[in-house]
Amino acid sequence: MSERRFTNQQIDKLLRPKSVAVVGASDRTGALGATLLNNLVQYEFAGAIYPINPKRDEIAGLKCYHSVDELPGPVDCAVLAIPRPFVLDTVRQLAANGCGAVVIYSAGFSEAGEEGLREQLELGAIAAEHGMVIEGPNCLGCTNYIERVPLTFVETNMQTPPKGARAVGIASQSGAIAAVLATVLHPRGCYVSTSVSTGNEAASGVEDYVHWLVDDEDTHVISMYLESIRRPRAFLAAVRRAREAGKPVIVLHPGKSNKAQESAATHTGALAGDYALMKTKLAREGVIFAETLEELGDITEIALRCPALPGANMAVLGESGALRGLAFDIAEEIGLDLVDLHDEDSPALRAALPDFVPVSNPLDITAVGLSEPEIYTHTLTALLEDERIGSVVASIIQSDPVTCGIKLPHIMKVVEQGSFSKPLVFAGVDEGAKVPEEYVAGLRKVGIPVFPSTERAYRAIARLADLAKRDLADNSGAPVELPGLKGVSGVVPEYRAKELLAPLGIPFPASKFAASAEEAAAAAEAIGYPVVLKAQAAALGHKSDAGGVILNLKSAEEVREAFTRMFGNVAAYDSSIALDGVLVEKMGRMGLEMIVGAKGDPEWGPVVLAGFGGVTAEVLKDVVLLTPDLSQEQVVERLLTLKQAALLKGWRGSPALDVPALAALIVEMGRVMAGNPQIREIDLNPVIVHPKGEGVVALDALMLVE
Amino acid sequence: MSERRFTNQQIDKLLRPKSVAVVGASDRTGALGATLLNNLVQYEFAGAIYPINPKRDEIAGLKCYHSVDELPGPVDCAVLAIPRPFVLDTVRQLAANGCGAVVIYSAGFSEAGEEGLREQLELGAIAAEHGMVIEGPNCLGCTNYIERVPLTFVETNMQTPPKGARAVGIASQSGAIAAVLATVLHPRGCYVSTSVSTGNEAASGVEDYVHWLVDDEDTHVISMYLESIRRPRAFLAAVRRAREAGKPVIVLHPGKSNKAQESAATHTGALAGDYALMKTKLAREGVIFAETLEELGDITEIALRCPALPGANMAVLGESGALRGLAFDIAEEIGLDLVDLHDEDSPALRAALPDFVPVSNPLDITAVGLSEPEIYTHTLTALLEDERIGSVVASIIQSDPVTCGIKLPHIMKVVEQGSFSKPLVFAGVDEGAKVPEEYVAGLRKVGIPVFPSTERAYRAIARLADLAKRDLADNSGAPVELPGLKGVSGVVPEYRAKELLAPLGIPFPASKFAASAEEAAAAAEAIGYPVVLKAQAAALGHKSDAGGVILNLKSAEEVREAFTRMFGNVAAYDSSIALDGVLVEKMGRMGLEMIVGAKGDPEWGPVVLAGFGGVTAEVLKDVVLLTPDLSQEQVVERLLTLKQAALLKGWRGSPALDVPALAALIVEMGRVMAGNPQIREIDLNPVIVHPKGEGVVALDALMLVE
Repeated sequence: MSERRFTNQQIDKLLRPKSVAVVGASDRTGALGATLLNNLVQYEFAGAIYPINPKRDEIAGLKCYHSVDELPGPVDCAVLAIPRPFVLDTVRQLAANGCGAVVIYSAGFSEAGEEGLREQLELGAIAAEHGMVIEGPNCLGCTNYIERVPLTFVETNMQTPPKGARAVGIASQSGAIAAVLATVLHPRGCYVSTSVSTGNEAASGVEDYVHWLVDDEDTHVISMYLESIRRPRAFLAAVRRAREAGKPVIVLHPGKSNKAQESAATHTGALAGDYALMKTKLAREGVIFAETLEELGDITEIALRCPALPGANMAVLGESGALRGLAFDIAEEIGLDLVDLHDEDSPALRAALPDFVPVSNPLDITAVGLSEPEIYTHTLTALLEDERIGSVVASIIQSDPVTCGIKLPHIMKVVEQGSFSKPLVFAGVDEGAKVPEEYVAGLRKVGIPVFPSTERAYRAIARLADLAKRDLADNSGAPVELPGLKGVSGVVPEYRAKELLAPLGIPFPASKFAASAEEAAAAAEAIGYPVVLKAQAAALGHKSDAGGVILNLKSAEEVREAFTRMFGNVAAYDSSIALDGVLVEKMGRMGLEMIVGAKGDPEWGPVVLAGFGGVTAEVLKDVVLLTPDLSQEQVVERLLTLKQAALLKGWRGSPALDVPALAALIVEMGRVMAGNPQIREIDLNPVIVHPKGEGVVALDALMLVE
Repeated sequence: MSERRFTNQQIDKLLRPKSVAVVGASDRTGALGATLLNNLVQYEFAGAIYPINPKRDEIAGLKCYHSVDELPGPVDCAVLAIPRPFVLDTVRQLAANGCGAVVIYSAGFSEAGEEGLREQLELGAIAAEHGMVIEGPNCLGCTNYIERVPLTFVETNMQTPPKGARAVGIASQSGAIAAVLATVLHPRGCYVSTSVSTGNEAASGVEDYVHWLVDDEDTHVISMYLESIRRPRAFLAAVRRAREAGKPVIVLHPGKSNKAQESAATHTGALAGDYALMKTKLAREGVIFAETLEELGDITEIALRCPALPGANMAVLGESGALRGLAFDIAEEIGLDLVDLHDEDSPALRAALPDFVPVSNPLDITAVGLSEPEIYTHTLTALLEDERIGSVVASIIQSDPVTCGIKLPHIMKVVEQGSFSKPLVFAGVDEGAKVPEEYVAGLRKVGIPVFPSTERAYRAIARLADLAKRDLADNSGAPVELPGLKGVSGVVPEYRAKELLAPLGIPFPASKFAASAEEAAAAAEAIGYPVVLKAQAAALGHKSDAGGVILNLKSAEEVREAFTRMFGNVAAYDSSIALDGVLVEKMGRMGLEMIVGAKGDPEWGPVVLAGFGGVTAEVLKDVVLLTPDLSQEQVVERLLTLKQAALLKGWRGSPALDVPALAALIVEMGRVMAGNPQIREIDLNPVIVHPKGEGVVALDALMLVE
């Protein structure tokens, strides 16, 4: 599952075919085979077209073949516009015939139950055996807008990008969204290079298409709709390549809500993965996330049209005080940083403004631009030249053609007169105002996207700024192999887990395993009082519930008594559990309870979770997910984004806590996970965090090994 | 501050004037007095126009007067298009002249410093003395679209609503937003009745205009932008009247973020109020809140165009599985309820669908509508007839004119064939698709708003559904007067606060005030051990910090010793504090710590806060604000919306807690606040909540009385 399964040359048979067979060709209006054929003919597909229909000798002026076997030779690509029951046999024939790629529109496979799943797996096996690409089943086909190949039954608007134009490649697990995205982008003057709807991905999947788009010189941005990443490792490798190639990958992936995850399962028949894990891993590879379909189009436009992606801090030029307050509210809600600007620290901006307008961000130039429109040019230039600023929005009241005629040319001039490596976005405040088309086209031509509202500009920029705020350098420490792990599998009880982890410097309280009351008493004497006794057995999940934790023992006698009592408690709780013995552990100071957990996913790789523990841990879910390649400083930074981070920083007179020590522990856990892929889970809960300089202590440890 | 200051007849002089004087009339392009005069002439204002300019005898073909004194008699309204320094004297002359209303465009008053504020107060005094309405200063004027009165210097598009058309009245503290909202609504075929920009509100304010709009028979919906409600009580009365009149009030009010609050202060010179308090009180009067400018227009359109406001639960008809997941995510994020629909419980819907389409919500009818478009009519009708559903969105892939021609007529037919008392909103999935104008107009004509994206339809419906979910019945209990409160003022120490509140049934631990060590020991003997001793003095804010709380005393001797020690502690902490004595209090069981606080605002009235206490109280701010007119059941419901509500319901094996008892306490606090308006604050912190049936206990009490 970790490797890409099809080469670009193989995918070329689908996306750059020289010959296309239309299985189920038709001229009945509305039939899939008719629209498809019509698309090919209408847009003058340059290769050979082979309609196939058992009942016809000619369709749309083309010779029609009665079956796949009649084809004069192997075709690059066959599109199946036929009912589901005929699909499998036809694919077998095509494979035998040397066909390079197949498009399957029909639904009714893995998403429809066992029978469908079985057939889909068979499709996959045929594809693997013959090196044949399969798009679908349950898809809408694909369109290469550069080479004018419309292999889809959707009415297509074949807008071929002009030479040298930047264009977006689309790979979508929903055919509807692939089609919708092209419909949305084209009227905005944005070009699509190639669009693929991947459907159930019986054989080739999103990872193959991303690789292909990365290598496609006509593609500059990759926009995707995903529901279920079937081959995470291969997909991560693909988006990593996109990043290295400087092609932004924008992903819309529902699944934040449980209901969305359930919905995905019934839609394409794939189990929804762990949404948070997916997002953590993709974010680390530089993927940009759209939260809505609207945002997917908006972000794509900025990525296509602007000279570079937005940096972390946005500045706004506006014309009303009211819009300042609204901007602050929305910026806070969506996590967008508005850099602070003042008269004192912004001389260039100060010089560009009339005296009565104070420098601020958002800037409110009032209505003065109507009488002195060169202010737009000067202030926007000053903002774009300011190094503190990563993107600029001109939030403009458009009113009517006369007003636009005053303001907009002076905004275009900004770019005509200067060359900037950051986005300038034009956002109309009054959607629907009559803006002459020439101005919209003019702004776009110089690289200024035109948005219908400031809200939308802010949201799109926020998602892009999120990428700018990530430090994507790989700060992985060296993986650490646990020497004692050989032969260990299943649930590892606390004392064994601590034995395995302690040599790495994971801080545990002094403790000693004891198999008898006497051993326990001796251990306690050696460790020093008070101690806690904890029952030990792999089968004992919740020690406390079973009376398997006895606290605050202050003498050898108390320890002996507790040992015996504990065996009784556990036997009474569940007589099938045989205790290995007890862990005698030094009791320490109280402190803030945190949780540190690590999870090793065979496909996605390891991830470390850290957050607040205690009673409300599960209620508040105040946690961060971290990849294991972060530095200690990066982890500290992330920990300080927790909702209750104030408690770490020294709250109401209590001392600041040892967050660096907690971060060091987390980094160490990442190294352990990287060095021991057979570990499925490690849970340190609670981890007590002491005041700064006094470290952390993990009171409990659980491991699950494959 | 509680009363409306101007009658409708007075406001009529501004909004329905029979004569208008233009002070500062001009014919210089771009001058305010020129655009204003041009608006009046161009739109054929039916009354008399009196241009005033000391240097001209005629302007725009009208006789020009040299000064206010030259006017032939009192005018209904004078518009001041003159520089700030001349405003005050001119207003004095106009008032003396019997002028009914004045519009002041100039800025530079309360928002500009002390001098400006002083002049603004003087304007207010003149207005009060002469019963003269003042719009502004620092405003954009007003436009009555019904009677065609454009008293603004903004280029105006005078779209007069046809007879019988529903129209929105706009009252906005920002002139820009008043203008923008009209620009946004007109192209959507939505009509404005009258629009007022209120500016600094030297005299007449938003409350006066709302009253006027409520009584204006051409106004059906009221949309507002607010930054600072200067006369809360009068404003609450105004929106209450709007609700009684069945006119929805939609408010956009920045201030969720601190920065937005600061921004408001510099914008119109008014202090930002308590945003949460404002929102709680307005919500209780049925106000609908828009979060963004986009939403303000969107919500207004639904309120104008649809047969009724949306109910609580939304249903969606869609054509793609992918959009289901996206809908679930956004619905969860914005708090929109998607009612569950299944084959078994929805026979009408079941009958309207092809076999292979399961009943669900959002419904995914797939692409079948392209070949059987009557499915749109049947399913939408079934959804609109379903009593569980409060609004319906048709989320449609528009693609191109041909596709629209297939689908859209069958959607219009839904309303043509039936009559429904809930909104049906058309939301295009692919913004920018070529939708023939006739279809857009056709949908609007039958009362179906056309939205460019589903996201926007969802957001607008969510804000409206929020109103539907509120139970606005007044369940106030009888106000309770505290007999002992007479003569009390300032900070009331704990023992006195408890004495005052205990007779009402507010549950406190058994306690007794003691002024000497002996009295304390005797009190402890009477109460029973263990007890806690708490230092008592109005000046002692934080008892614990001063060593003023000593816990867990188990004998008379310990109590005596603690008494002496405590006096020592407090003296060492701050020798200026003279203790009244100590409170000897029974120590009780532990339980969940909550906070109950009440605040009496002289203008907004009382409000009760309830939420989680303990260490993280201030970090998490997990609280609800409640008006004092809620029933115990309503309070329980609101408490269960807290983020940590799971802890109240019985978390991980612990028993469910006595939420009804907590709610009863909150209701009682509301009655106390209603009965004693001189109380500014009561804080019960912590309130210990015991298991269900075992009640609550307030451990501490603080009061602040005026």
